Amino acid sequence: VRAGWRPAGAARAAGALDTIERALHGDRRALARVLSVLEGGGAPAAEALRAIYPHAGRAQVVGLTGPAGSGKSTLAAALARYYRGRGERVAVVAVDPTSPYSGGALLGDRVRMPDLAADDGVFIRSMASRGGSGGLALAANAVVAALDAAGYQRVLIETVGAGQAEIAVAKMAHTTVVVTVPGLGDEVQALKAGLFEVGDVLVVNKADRPEADRAQAELAMLQSLAPAAAWQPPVVPTVALTGDGVADLAGAIARHAAYLEATGEGRRRVRERAEAAVLGAAQAEIGKRLTRALGGGRMPALVSGVAEHELSPYDAASDLLAAVGLGTES
Amino acid sequence: VRAGWRPAGAARAAGALDTIERALHGDRRALARVLSVLEGGGAPAAEALRAIYPHAGRAQVVGLTGPAGSGKSTLAAALARYYRGRGERVAVVAVDPTSPYSGGALLGDRVRMPDLAADDGVFIRSMASRGGSGGLALAANAVVAALDAAGYQRVLIETVGAGQAEIAVAKMAHTTVVVTVPGLGDEVQALKAGLFEVGDVLVVNKADRPEADRAQAELAMLQSLAPAAAWQPPVVPTVALTGDGVADLAGAIARHAAYLEATGEGRRRVRERAEAAVLGAAQAEIGKRLTRALGGGRMPALVSGVAEHELSPYDAASDLLAAVGLGTES
Repeated sequence: VRAGWRPAGAARAAGALDTIERALHGDRRALARVLSVLEGGGAPAAEALRAIYPHAGRAQVVGLTGPAGSGKSTLAAALARYYRGRGERVAVVAVDPTSPYSGGALLGDRVRMPDLAADDGVFIRSMASRGGSGGLALAANAVVAALDAAGYQRVLIETVGAGQAEIAVAKMAHTTVVVTVPGLGDEVQALKAGLFEVGDVLVVNKADRPEADRAQAELAMLQSLAPAAAWQPPVVPTVALTGDGVADLAGAIARHAAYLEATGEGRRRVRERAEAAVLGAAQAEIGKRLTRALGGGRMPALVSGVAEHELSPYDAASDLLAAVGLGTES
Repeated sequence: VRAGWRPAGAARAAGALDTIERALHGDRRALARVLSVLEGGGAPAAEALRAIYPHAGRAQVVGLTGPAGSGKSTLAAALARYYRGRGERVAVVAVDPTSPYSGGALLGDRVRMPDLAADDGVFIRSMASRGGSGGLALAANAVVAALDAAGYQRVLIETVGAGQAEIAVAKMAHTTVVVTVPGLGDEVQALKAGLFEVGDVLVVNKADRPEADRAQAELAMLQSLAPAAAWQPPVVPTVALTGDGVADLAGAIARHAAYLEATGEGRRRVRERAEAAVLGAAQAEIGKRLTRALGGGRMPALVSGVAEHELSPYDAASDLLAAVGLGTES
């Protein structure tokens, strides 16, 4: 029996499944290709994730977030090195929602950290923004699942900044580390952006700076203002460049993992993440259809009507929803 | 003929239309009630906006955005006072996407600015976040349309911060003013957050501070890095507290309005805003239905399936979309 009789789609699907199989068994090039498919979204991503998802659910996912310039990348590398030193397989996902293209900053990291880039037990991947925070969080979720399924025991997600997208990405982690540096007013910025609400562990990086004590004191004060809770996020000083404090950080992360396990909070978060993933996938699909509807049909006339104030946005939206298969309900 | 025979819904609708009529003719209490209906969303908001929208489209909408602490509220008040001094009717909409409740900061402003609060030619309204940036932008759009329809010639929208929501709100304006202050590194924060991309006029407020010259020089340098464009955003130093530079700011806003008019860029923006408003309304409606679907039916089972890694988020989303009336397409 020749394989040639198969329709092209089935042959491609079979090839994709073979690639996934190899990725799950440690083939790094196959894994990289699978991650690209997952990042690309659409039907191929949905198909790939269907095959991968049942194998995921074992890795500990740690998010690192905070303002640019806080040394987050260096800290992620130091943490990866720490876990690697204990024989674990580690993946690092760098997410930059502000950059339309990936690679820049991370390439820099790879050059600075040849030990990690050359290590087969470490997988580094950078992701950039694709069509808004929803799409990015969805793709990041799929990428983390694939790395998890491929046997990386620790998956570190590093995000830049303090917007909605970063918080959405950070929420995918079991434990979220919020990184600040002393003396930049970043504590305040991060506070305003709601970063502290998602922080399970707070890090003052570059703790060898003279202003570090004040930064730590400020964080402690901010914490004292928060309502009492079962888990009080510890403040860990680190110097990522030298590795100082990284073992303490790993210890704090481990304590948080134990807390999640002991209290059922871990299960609650897994459900919460699952719900967000389902909603994210649904919204991505709807967004795709709306964008398609924008290109043709009634949309230009609807926009003109609203621009000329002849039609309200709500009434135009009702028309648009009908055009994408969603009749008006209310 | 008694009105009593009407069904309750029709009577309520007639009452709402009467309230709208009075709001459009200068009744401030009626206007406040209409704005609350618009903020509340749903069918009553859609109905109210249908009646209001044809009367809007005359006001000049100016957005003011920038980091907290830049004195934006004081600057908005100073600008309102300036326009008021020329006999115009001015509305100020303060949007705080970070606050779940409205009123706090603005109430402070009212106490500090009794002249504006007591002036019948000025209308001040604060809005807080309701269900994410999409809902907020949609509600803000409707509120601005109502103030416009009620005859306020200048509508100032003031937003806090630098997230997606603020940028969405700022994009509703004809002219967007980005406010920074010297010496806080806010230029850099605002730059990173993409605020400068939406700025038609850049303000260095608190320009009496010693670091002001450096801040202006930095902004000028940032501008020199931007690609050449038909409109080069001017940098205007102000001291909002004393009113210094506010006339210059009004001049820069007027020049930008003339540029919009002369080049057709104004029309392009109106279309862009209309498109965003239609999409926003469509997404709000879809979000409402998804949230409703979350409450019951198949959703808990879908979330469990994803949480247990038995089902991928994409496949769960397909089920969810089918449940809200969107069959799978692709």
